[in-house]
Amino acid sequence: MTTKPITVALLGSGVVGTAVARELTRNAADFEARVGAPVQIVGALVRDASKDRSETGLPADVFTTDAEGLVERADIVVELMGGTEPAKSLITKALENGASVVTANKALLGEAGPELYQLAMEHGVDLSYEAAVAGAIPLIRPLRESLAGDEVTKVLGIVNGTTNFILDKMDRTGANLEDVLAEAQSLGYAEADPTADVEGHDAQAKAAILASLAFHTRVRTSDVHCEGIMGLTAEDIKAARRAGCVIKLLAIAEKVERDGADGGPGVNVRVHPVLLARSHPLATVREAFNAVFVETKLAGELMFYGRGAGGDPTASAVLGDIVHAARHRVSGSHGAGESAYANLPILPIGESLTRYVVRVEVADEPGVLGRVTSAFGDQGVSIESMRQGVRRSEDGLASLTFMTHEAPESALATTVDTIKKLPDVTSVTSVLRAEGI
Amino acid sequence: MTTKPITVALLGSGVVGTAVARELTRNAADFEARVGAPVQIVGALVRDASKDRSETGLPADVFTTDAEGLVERADIVVELMGGTEPAKSLITKALENGASVVTANKALLGEAGPELYQLAMEHGVDLSYEAAVAGAIPLIRPLRESLAGDEVTKVLGIVNGTTNFILDKMDRTGANLEDVLAEAQSLGYAEADPTADVEGHDAQAKAAILASLAFHTRVRTSDVHCEGIMGLTAEDIKAARRAGCVIKLLAIAEKVERDGADGGPGVNVRVHPVLLARSHPLATVREAFNAVFVETKLAGELMFYGRGAGGDPTASAVLGDIVHAARHRVSGSHGAGESAYANLPILPIGESLTRYVVRVEVADEPGVLGRVTSAFGDQGVSIESMRQGVRRSEDGLASLTFMTHEAPESALATTVDTIKKLPDVTSVTSVLRAEGI
Repeated sequence: MTTKPITVALLGSGVVGTAVARELTRNAADFEARVGAPVQIVGALVRDASKDRSETGLPADVFTTDAEGLVERADIVVELMGGTEPAKSLITKALENGASVVTANKALLGEAGPELYQLAMEHGVDLSYEAAVAGAIPLIRPLRESLAGDEVTKVLGIVNGTTNFILDKMDRTGANLEDVLAEAQSLGYAEADPTADVEGHDAQAKAAILASLAFHTRVRTSDVHCEGIMGLTAEDIKAARRAGCVIKLLAIAEKVERDGADGGPGVNVRVHPVLLARSHPLATVREAFNAVFVETKLAGELMFYGRGAGGDPTASAVLGDIVHAARHRVSGSHGAGESAYANLPILPIGESLTRYVVRVEVADEPGVLGRVTSAFGDQGVSIESMRQGVRRSEDGLASLTFMTHEAPESALATTVDTIKKLPDVTSVTSVLRAEGI
Repeated sequence: MTTKPITVALLGSGVVGTAVARELTRNAADFEARVGAPVQIVGALVRDASKDRSETGLPADVFTTDAEGLVERADIVVELMGGTEPAKSLITKALENGASVVTANKALLGEAGPELYQLAMEHGVDLSYEAAVAGAIPLIRPLRESLAGDEVTKVLGIVNGTTNFILDKMDRTGANLEDVLAEAQSLGYAEADPTADVEGHDAQAKAAILASLAFHTRVRTSDVHCEGIMGLTAEDIKAARRAGCVIKLLAIAEKVERDGADGGPGVNVRVHPVLLARSHPLATVREAFNAVFVETKLAGELMFYGRGAGGDPTASAVLGDIVHAARHRVSGSHGAGESAYANLPILPIGESLTRYVVRVEVADEPGVLGRVTSAFGDQGVSIESMRQGVRRSEDGLASLTFMTHEAPESALATTVDTIKKLPDVTSVTSVLRAEGI
């Protein structure tokens, strides 16, 4: 074939960038056959251009420290730096120059995705980001293209491998969070500063990206209600286990039909721990794996499962996007853009409807059960079931577990505040949202 | 928007066609926003044009009995007739006229896919078929596009809902196949003539389509070794259950690296019942659901799960393809074609390597175990474990269950033939291939 090569610039030469470079070099003939033209790396951004990088199979003069110059001389710019700057400026420059962009940068997309999608459309180029959510799992393209004729109503995803590893391990061993987190750090599943994972911020950005795609609406990271896993105790996990459940950190995006004056549907996006029936398909997702459950009007329930992180899995997603963009460069076209035409309102978290499991510790005195039950009723929160734990006779305390019907977050919050102040109530031990129970 | 409408012709107005027409009509504004132009049904092929079809929301003059005329006057021809003719002639004519084609016709694609893909590429139009395999599950596009930069090594799929319903029911109730099949027929999960499902022919065509895509090689239905489920007894299912396993009918496509003179990889594609560990993700697929497990070099293990049949789920996949083709018509481009560049040889079934579970009934006489064991050894089939069932003292018979290491199909077949002829061997009760055990 004598077709003009499609040129690629790599911004970032970490574990993913190295895997991408290795595959494009080693399997050059396959990529040429699949694209219809050779795919050639013309530059890779590094911090130190003198370091030995022979394992990539690239000639030494490909490596450069000049990011600005690099984005001007490639058909496809692959951004693997992470963080918002200088990634945003470089991607903006690349798109304005008419290059297609492939990125794995969820933080940037969660914050500035809408502007960047718009810019890509204006310049008639591709902006692809399969690797930004759930690593190797084909999810962005199915949502954007395969389900383009259907109506997504709910997305429920385990999109952070670190927290899933921790919660799965706590479930299987009964250990407490601090010990498992330390183990996850020593195994490389959690970073030295695990904040972004355990506080849910990583999942929060991914939830925004998924919700935007699923509902054709602009959702930013800051629109997503977020709670992490640090408040979970070994006792929470054990109590879940006794109830035939498991606790998972989920990214949840729902399209909600609203009655009344406001009318019209809205979007509810949140990240928090969820009590999940052990029979739910997401409950079986082990270790650092990711899985995303999608409910649609026509297709019904769909699930996508696979590895959410790691050099090779992430490279698989990035390479798929490179082939996609390269095929379009060869045919002089570009893929479907993002659509935000639906422009649905983002609902406040207080309006979200969920079922709750509330555990309360009370002094075992007459009348206390009635007072706690009334606190639910006063806010219109309907109780589905109540279970009283074994009484600890030595301290005269009893544990009550309430499962509610669907109730608004705000009504539940008021209920919990009221219960905390009741006489004979020692503490509200835990409040968990439930799915599929 | 004043853009020229994209015109659609529907060939087939059954349950899927009706759902497609209903959605395109009812959600016309959504489709217009997603495509960038109105999507308009200009004709629907029916057997009887006078029948009342007001539920589709289409004007009565859209319905026609003139198939030949219809394919000449649409941008996108949607073929939902099934069978090879006249579907093949009509699709050929549409592609030659420069129309894009969306089809759910696995029988036709399994037989004549390669010619039709070629024809679509020559005419620069899309030929999409997401609905042909695993119904609503986005699978074709992920294989063709998302994994285009990776190397698929194995596909393992539950792609026939009827047989999965039957095997799942047998597993959960202990009933025999004939009774469950009758129930499946009365529930509408199996057809009056269930041959295509229970003999594996439906899965066989789907296996050919998946293998072609996964390995960039032309695989036809006739290249796929096929065994159905009619030979399975309630006792087989119960024995599997006792061993912590479940039996599923799987479509399996593998890329096999071969040593020796021939060298180079080959492709092995087959459909048959498989003994699967209950912990394998595919083992949990219940009722008429479908799921496909994909192993790749970089991404590792991926799974896709959802509804494999039904009017609305199939319509979801067809509508996604219509939007895909319509977007390309608007932008004057077309999507990635099929590539068959790898052109790998299809290996004979005798060369496929699998682990087997063989149950043998023998007279409980000295020496019989040694003779049976030698029959395996003589063919180079290595035994991993042997279990002797409870002796039935009344008839002096014993049941032996052998699990082998990976062995070629041909060596195992010879072993079984030898064992059948041994003195003191009453019968070879069952021979099952195993995965993930």
